[in-house]
Amino acid sequence: MQENVEFSGFTRIRRVAPIAVDTHGGRAKCLQRLIRLDFPVPETVALSFDAVHRIAEGQRPDAKALLRHFSEKTLVSVRPSSQVPDWGGPGAILNIGMNHDRHAELIESHGKKAADALYLRFVQAFAIHVARLDPEMFELDKGELTLEAALQAYEDETDEEFPQDVGTQLTEVLRSMARAWGGTTARLLRQAKGAPADAGLGLVVQEMSLGLGPAESGSGVIQFVDGVTGQPQITGRYASQCQARDALSQPEGAMFLTRDQRGPSLQELCPDIFDDLVRYGAVCRTKLREEMQIEFTIEAGKLAILDAVRVHRSARAAVRIAVALGQDGVITHDDAISRIPPRSLSELLHPQVDPGAKRDVIVTGIAASPGAAVGKVAFSSSCAQAMAARGEPVILVRRETAPEDIRGMHSSVGVLTERGGMTSHAAVIARGLGLPCVVGASMMSLNRREKSLRVPDGRVLHEGDTITLDGTSGQVLVGEVPMLGASLDGPFHTLMEWADERRDIGVRANADTPVDATVARNFGAEGIGLCRTEHMFFEGERLTVMREMIFTDDPDDRAAALARLLPMQRKDFIELFRIMSGQPVCIRLFDPPLHEFLPSDREGMRELAEALNVPLSTVTRRIDALSEFNPMLGMRGVRLGITVPEIYDMQARAIFEATAEASRSGDAVVPEIMVPLVSAMREVELVKSRVDAVAAAVRIEKRCGFDYKLGVMVETPRAALRAGEIAQFSDFLSFGTNDLTQMTYGLSRDDAGRFMGAYVNLGVYAEDPFHTLDIEGVGELLMIGAERARTAAKGITVSICGEHGGNPESIAFCRAAGFDYVSCSPFRVPVARLAAAQLALKQTV
Amino acid sequence: MQENVEFSGFTRIRRVAPIAVDTHGGRAKCLQRLIRLDFPVPETVALSFDAVHRIAEGQRPDAKALLRHFSEKTLVSVRPSSQVPDWGGPGAILNIGMNHDRHAELIESHGKKAADALYLRFVQAFAIHVARLDPEMFELDKGELTLEAALQAYEDETDEEFPQDVGTQLTEVLRSMARAWGGTTARLLRQAKGAPADAGLGLVVQEMSLGLGPAESGSGVIQFVDGVTGQPQITGRYASQCQARDALSQPEGAMFLTRDQRGPSLQELCPDIFDDLVRYGAVCRTKLREEMQIEFTIEAGKLAILDAVRVHRSARAAVRIAVALGQDGVITHDDAISRIPPRSLSELLHPQVDPGAKRDVIVTGIAASPGAAVGKVAFSSSCAQAMAARGEPVILVRRETAPEDIRGMHSSVGVLTERGGMTSHAAVIARGLGLPCVVGASMMSLNRREKSLRVPDGRVLHEGDTITLDGTSGQVLVGEVPMLGASLDGPFHTLMEWADERRDIGVRANADTPVDATVARNFGAEGIGLCRTEHMFFEGERLTVMREMIFTDDPDDRAAALARLLPMQRKDFIELFRIMSGQPVCIRLFDPPLHEFLPSDREGMRELAEALNVPLSTVTRRIDALSEFNPMLGMRGVRLGITVPEIYDMQARAIFEATAEASRSGDAVVPEIMVPLVSAMREVELVKSRVDAVAAAVRIEKRCGFDYKLGVMVETPRAALRAGEIAQFSDFLSFGTNDLTQMTYGLSRDDAGRFMGAYVNLGVYAEDPFHTLDIEGVGELLMIGAERARTAAKGITVSICGEHGGNPESIAFCRAAGFDYVSCSPFRVPVARLAAAQLALKQTV
Repeated sequence: MQENVEFSGFTRIRRVAPIAVDTHGGRAKCLQRLIRLDFPVPETVALSFDAVHRIAEGQRPDAKALLRHFSEKTLVSVRPSSQVPDWGGPGAILNIGMNHDRHAELIESHGKKAADALYLRFVQAFAIHVARLDPEMFELDKGELTLEAALQAYEDETDEEFPQDVGTQLTEVLRSMARAWGGTTARLLRQAKGAPADAGLGLVVQEMSLGLGPAESGSGVIQFVDGVTGQPQITGRYASQCQARDALSQPEGAMFLTRDQRGPSLQELCPDIFDDLVRYGAVCRTKLREEMQIEFTIEAGKLAILDAVRVHRSARAAVRIAVALGQDGVITHDDAISRIPPRSLSELLHPQVDPGAKRDVIVTGIAASPGAAVGKVAFSSSCAQAMAARGEPVILVRRETAPEDIRGMHSSVGVLTERGGMTSHAAVIARGLGLPCVVGASMMSLNRREKSLRVPDGRVLHEGDTITLDGTSGQVLVGEVPMLGASLDGPFHTLMEWADERRDIGVRANADTPVDATVARNFGAEGIGLCRTEHMFFEGERLTVMREMIFTDDPDDRAAALARLLPMQRKDFIELFRIMSGQPVCIRLFDPPLHEFLPSDREGMRELAEALNVPLSTVTRRIDALSEFNPMLGMRGVRLGITVPEIYDMQARAIFEATAEASRSGDAVVPEIMVPLVSAMREVELVKSRVDAVAAAVRIEKRCGFDYKLGVMVETPRAALRAGEIAQFSDFLSFGTNDLTQMTYGLSRDDAGRFMGAYVNLGVYAEDPFHTLDIEGVGELLMIGAERARTAAKGITVSICGEHGGNPESIAFCRAAGFDYVSCSPFRVPVARLAAAQLALKQTV
Repeated sequence: MQENVEFSGFTRIRRVAPIAVDTHGGRAKCLQRLIRLDFPVPETVALSFDAVHRIAEGQRPDAKALLRHFSEKTLVSVRPSSQVPDWGGPGAILNIGMNHDRHAELIESHGKKAADALYLRFVQAFAIHVARLDPEMFELDKGELTLEAALQAYEDETDEEFPQDVGTQLTEVLRSMARAWGGTTARLLRQAKGAPADAGLGLVVQEMSLGLGPAESGSGVIQFVDGVTGQPQITGRYASQCQARDALSQPEGAMFLTRDQRGPSLQELCPDIFDDLVRYGAVCRTKLREEMQIEFTIEAGKLAILDAVRVHRSARAAVRIAVALGQDGVITHDDAISRIPPRSLSELLHPQVDPGAKRDVIVTGIAASPGAAVGKVAFSSSCAQAMAARGEPVILVRRETAPEDIRGMHSSVGVLTERGGMTSHAAVIARGLGLPCVVGASMMSLNRREKSLRVPDGRVLHEGDTITLDGTSGQVLVGEVPMLGASLDGPFHTLMEWADERRDIGVRANADTPVDATVARNFGAEGIGLCRTEHMFFEGERLTVMREMIFTDDPDDRAAALARLLPMQRKDFIELFRIMSGQPVCIRLFDPPLHEFLPSDREGMRELAEALNVPLSTVTRRIDALSEFNPMLGMRGVRLGITVPEIYDMQARAIFEATAEASRSGDAVVPEIMVPLVSAMREVELVKSRVDAVAAAVRIEKRCGFDYKLGVMVETPRAALRAGEIAQFSDFLSFGTNDLTQMTYGLSRDDAGRFMGAYVNLGVYAEDPFHTLDIEGVGELLMIGAERARTAAKGITVSICGEHGGNPESIAFCRAAGFDYVSCSPFRVPVARLAAAQLALKQTV
């Protein structure tokens, strides 16, 4: 026990004192900066991380020595000063030094009310946070608890008089704050925000500027931009006769800062002080290079600046502030880029539920695709389409979605499913479409027959009822809730331009439809990195033709069905090529197992039998024959391409005919054809030889000398291991990390939901590998594949096109591994562009 | 064109001529050996591979020079001499040199009949094989085609006289034989037998010993062991007035070799020649170190040895012959080991359809598990059990089998399925049980409702009909066909003992049941490398308890169900430990998804609802909730072990209690516990900590200080990549190559059947990777995993326990990679032991 060892370890903050963020915390450092700017900051002493750590360990601070820095009868406050403000810390404690003697003196100088208030505030804080007494006894509303009652309660609970020695008061406060930092909850909370296990806490002890008493006294906060929009605007509050930030929490008596018709303002009350504050704000902005919120006190007409903190801001405001600082030359463009967390951009790209709106949450699921939408509930894709046709916004609610729901999803403004995880079908498609989406809302119970939805509190929703879906938070709200629109304004585009100047890895989008492609263009994608073609076969008439093709055993009939699909596919591609106007478009050949195109319920089978004019038994037998134990690992991708080569032949022809057509009327198109689910070199060799033959034929027929590229989607561990030989037949390799993750873990993303939560909680997996790229396992396969491919075929293009493509961590990995580009869903393109720029900057430094 | 360049390139075979197998082929070399042994071999000239190659390329051999080696009026034969007899070659052509002049002379010396026969034989062979005329015109039965008609037909077809110049005759024969070697069919056939693309052909030109003519003339073959049993016995045939091997194909007139009551014999006819032949046979055996079949001719009472070839033999005979040669000191034990192809042992371990029996094949499928069985058809497991209970042999016929068919399979003598491939459930289990099995017999059509089976030719079988299943050939025969029994005789055991002396990698067996374990012991397995525990839960009462456990949400009820399973499991393990008497037993913890234990049809669900006394809807809902998109990649293995830890707790307890019990009454047991489907280190860490706790508890309860090992089944690519960290918590790693192959390829073995045939035919995969270990892909993961594990944890045991474990190629790979043992199905253990010994010997050389 070192209980009795006294030590100091504190530093008076002056212009030249040795104060640093990583030894004393951000607040201490900021206060030193303010002092250097000649702001009227009261005397302040900083305790280092080390000092606080020793206090927590049981060493006794030399409070007497500390107090010697202050004038004898001064009250002091103690505030936390952690390395990063976000990591939190114990609450501030004010008015340390109040005791019966000071109380008596202050009655004389400041009046009884002020003296009582000052003492009571300290007794309350000390009782609750230092002596750990029952908060209920001390947290009564202002006015209901008198100073005397509080002191009595303290004595009753502790059997001791309230400590009168200022040194003891300060020692106990420091000790309690030091220990609070080591508490489990505090530790977990800050670690969740990225703090290391040994993160330190600093403390600052500051002379109180009271804010209570005779003449104009009070306190307030002021900032010079709006925290939601980022527009320049003086906001804040001031209230006479109050301490700290009370003006914000107790609006009665608080006044405006600038002259305002609605009531009194600081500008009118103390014009000089107001002017000083405005001047200080401007100095902060240029010297601290940031928009700061200033906490100030007026004691008997004299201004004191207690603190300045970064203005709390929305993602939208953050972008506007950073860009404005950059444009004003306060910071460099690179600094502006570095200041925006890439993921926060999602908030700008989608409408959001107004943070101020009242939320009647009926169920919460996994926030699978950001943004919010208001719409009417539909329980089937057909119903969704019908409602959309009537011009009604629809939210599709399903147990889970399947490929045949694509049209229903296209018709909807949001998607809600009972099952599934971050990478379920619904989640993936919704992110691609930019639809808000909540999945895995397993607490609700869907009754498809009665077309009703029972939510946990017992309420039942019916088809047509209006709900608001918040895909950013995962909440489902009943009724229509006010929204904030997307904000792709000037500053956003400016930031993106700056980012692109620094970025050194390409960013493409995964886009299957003209709508996707248009969004991708608008968000600055440099081409399409993954165009899945199978969705194209689910639309109306096409599905029927597909099914005819699947059902025939006669090669001629199959050829006839494919011939009918050809012009539709060609049209799809012409449209995509036109939208992307010369940018690369990477088209993945047909991938899913054929049974995905067949109905799964009895009714659908009966309809199909009628449509094809065959007996029901033929339909069921065929479906039965095509069914698979593990469809993920079955007859799909290139396996289908080799076994039924006519499908790829048709697709290649559609691509090349579209190339010829689009190149005639616009920029020359160089399509990229990607072969899915490869596991052996010879698969590529075989497909390539047929595709080459189709290209040669189309070149002659259309008298058009187009080029094209053929490459491989690396989705199996074996393709990664054998990338060297596969590269010999490939112009590019694109890692499909969704399937690659499934196969590397032996884990189906559709089935992982049942235990993934438990797994992440138990720390079995550090993260859901479908959400965050598994660098150790899947990542190693990416490295092996890329290296072997490049050794075998210098100059081969290497990229990633899985769901991970838009994650900053994955981009960092791909950039470090020398990948040429990442491809992600259109709505993540700006995130990726910014993240990539930041990575490039980090490396420059 | 080098048409006109003449060259020689032939060597007269003498004792010291430069003749080698890899320049002149095996026949030429063998003939030289016979000459060295002073056998009466007629004058022979060998053409080298190079010479034959040049002839095929168009160069003209110097036939005149060649013929100078023979006396002027001699007829000659030409025979192929490939490097390995199995690689084939064109048929021999005899009597070259016959023309009108020789014919006239031979009429004088040998009579018209002999002269005509000699000339006709040559004209026929020349017309068909050299001039390539229509065989139908020349292949009439003996006696129906006269010499004159043949010569006339030749002239009619070619518009040329039959060639009279001997040099021309020989040149054309050599050229046609040289070119036949390069033909596509011949090339593919020999490559299928392992010949390299550039395999050469040699030819031998030998003076004819005619076998026709005055005094005793004729020809025959003789060998000194039985080709089926390998027992010493003189067999063969001789016939007067015939050439080559005609005595074998034309039994009329052929005689016995040894004195025989049934008819005339060579021993009686020419006792001196017979004695010479017996002497030559004995010399062959000791000097050529092999049992040879001798081809001989008698011309006018004079013996000529034309050739000697290795006696064609069954696997059983091969073993007996090799062991006898070894025991007699003719060859070393190592030579004996090397002479038996390991895979051929399968033939010894199972009963086989008598090769001589008449086969009425009704359908052919994939030969999935070797051996043959006769039994009555049963279309369901329950029917199979009922029939077996009546003592009737049953062949279970199913569309495909599922885990609930285990008991039916146990009751059957063979399994036939309509679907599936080499690694389908039926195939894997049948191999494990040593049951003959044919899968993927897709041409038959099973009607479960009518309990009938329609085969391709329209016949319909009903329950109870008798069939014979040949799992070695994949054929299904109607009725009862005669069989040969298994032959685990003395020579087999001797060979295995010799092999074990050389073997330097362990061989264990995959064995789940006492029956398996007993077979494994009998076949010399050094322990159990994989004991799957899930099968134990499908039996009778256990299945019901399992289902109760699956259906309860109440932890207490679950604990109660598991408590009922505990003693059953304990009994299983005690029995296994006793059978293996101290040898290691590696028990894999519970692996399959829970839904495998639930019924899949409506009827079964209704029964279950009744049994559990819950509404049907509860059953269907639960089954629905547990159903998975890709069960292979779902909630199974260690994922289940971590999510429902009570199951592994119960199993660990059962294992340890059984260990205590079995160790008390026998050898000390050190059980090995294997965790399935691991993909992350922490999974192992978590399971290990619980298992350790159970062990500690049981040690105290039972006052027994047993040891145990805990290890990991490496089945996911990620586990292989992360083997280094996984090894820190593991005593052993065992690669489960079945699942590892599935995940590395992204290919479900249950679904691969639909295209695997096409894939192997197209050369997309060189081999079915579920059948032959994919060295390039899966093999690399094995190497990576083993290396990393050993670097991290020196002395860790590394093994393989997938289906590949018994394949000689996989054993070679594992041995080279330094694995400690392979584990395979019990019936492959002898194959593995022999293969491993051969590999060790190869390395010594």
